[in-house]
Amino acid sequence: MKFTDKLLNISRKNKSWLCIGLDPDPELMPGVDVLQFNKAIIEATSDLVCAYKPNLAFYEALGTEGLAILEKTVKYIPGDIPVIGDAKCGDIGNTARAYARALFSVLGFDAATVNPYLGFDSIEPFINYQDKGVFILCRTSNRGATDFQDLHTNGLPLYEAVAQKAKEWNTYGNIGLVVGATYPEELKRVRSICPEMPLLIPGIGAQGGDLASAVGYGVDARGEKAIINVSRQILYASKEKDFAQAARNMAEKIRNQINSCLKAK
Amino acid sequence: MKFTDKLLNISRKNKSWLCIGLDPDPELMPGVDVLQFNKAIIEATSDLVCAYKPNLAFYEALGTEGLAILEKTVKYIPGDIPVIGDAKCGDIGNTARAYARALFSVLGFDAATVNPYLGFDSIEPFINYQDKGVFILCRTSNRGATDFQDLHTNGLPLYEAVAQKAKEWNTYGNIGLVVGATYPEELKRVRSICPEMPLLIPGIGAQGGDLASAVGYGVDARGEKAIINVSRQILYASKEKDFAQAARNMAEKIRNQINSCLKAK
Repeated sequence: MKFTDKLLNISRKNKSWLCIGLDPDPELMPGVDVLQFNKAIIEATSDLVCAYKPNLAFYEALGTEGLAILEKTVKYIPGDIPVIGDAKCGDIGNTARAYARALFSVLGFDAATVNPYLGFDSIEPFINYQDKGVFILCRTSNRGATDFQDLHTNGLPLYEAVAQKAKEWNTYGNIGLVVGATYPEELKRVRSICPEMPLLIPGIGAQGGDLASAVGYGVDARGEKAIINVSRQILYASKEKDFAQAARNMAEKIRNQINSCLKAK
Repeated sequence: MKFTDKLLNISRKNKSWLCIGLDPDPELMPGVDVLQFNKAIIEATSDLVCAYKPNLAFYEALGTEGLAILEKTVKYIPGDIPVIGDAKCGDIGNTARAYARALFSVLGFDAATVNPYLGFDSIEPFINYQDKGVFILCRTSNRGATDFQDLHTNGLPLYEAVAQKAKEWNTYGNIGLVVGATYPEELKRVRSICPEMPLLIPGIGAQGGDLASAVGYGVDARGEKAIINVSRQILYASKEKDFAQAARNMAEKIRNQINSCLKAK
């Protein structure tokens, strides 16, 4: 099944555009094993999400065990929920092929994030997995996003040039874009350039982005395809034994807030 | 010891600006275990190089064992040879911190490559390890490099804007740049913007870059700090039992060619 179909199916079933970022940080977690923590979060929230998104940095930082934990985490997620491997890959041809194989064939992700700086041949090996989703970084949620992404290139800021290219490259219909909720005007611009692509929108919660504008500007004409990612606010809602229930409560609250924003629109 | 001092020490001792890219690809390798392969290559070449550079993609593609093999490979490299972790990281603040910890503290690299697209706060956690080297992608060696890196921003191509920013950000003197040998004119421009930074120069060998111009344009005023990376041409010089000796012969040949270019300059 195509990534976008899988995404739409579960989103409609769970009535949710919430994606949970599975980024286990031992400094913030309750004192449990990382795999047990992830399993508890997944069990507590799998009827409330449209996707999960593990960021590979947090697993690599765990040492040699990290990738095994990640692999088991991905396998534990119910098969109808897409899993986005957030590795922000960007490397030349033969290396990009190795990354695509690692993320899609070895780790089993349904989609991956990639960095556009190296251009088309660094992204092509990912796009060639036609059933997988490929989210290209466009306008990121951090402060430093302005350093290069806002530079004007032939009258357009670089992030808009990236959105334009992504549209050109979308032969198989499996490209999406990453746009931070912390920059609502830029999100609006990107949605107008790419009216049909799924957008992956981090920056809500710990990073301070506004949910109403993220939803309002992020969705397509049908009110869909805006994947709102939240990590820390849900994972660490409680550091006590009740962490899974607290995560569920927070996830439900945000899922419902997203739906209220959609109704208001 | 500062990364640049470690680099200059071994380069002077081994009379070499050759870096070997330790990118094991089971499809191209002789039929031996990956760790044994790496160890044999290191044993055969450690007196001929100024650095080793494993690209993480090739280890992640090996599955959950991959990072353990990488960790053992890094430990096996003699302590006076710097090891550059080529992961081309680019992520927001707290995630960048996790990557920096993974590369420098967990895996023990002396330097890392990073992607500039997300701006300063994505690079700062790496720079803050003041004894470690941080190579920012500037003008990459692949065809797609032209897609965004050449776009003009305020009259300057983006890769030059990146070189300018790298210079501004270099408070601790531990920043370097990645510039492909396949674009000699661009390499010349970058060296003129950053006369003292170490440059990591891939693209010789399998990718077809010209060695004489890479060396001629890449070195600083003293004829140093141009790290010429070669991977496939050395690792897979032979697919037979003599692969380590063949790798040594090829490494010695390229090391000597680099030195001839330096003398000619």
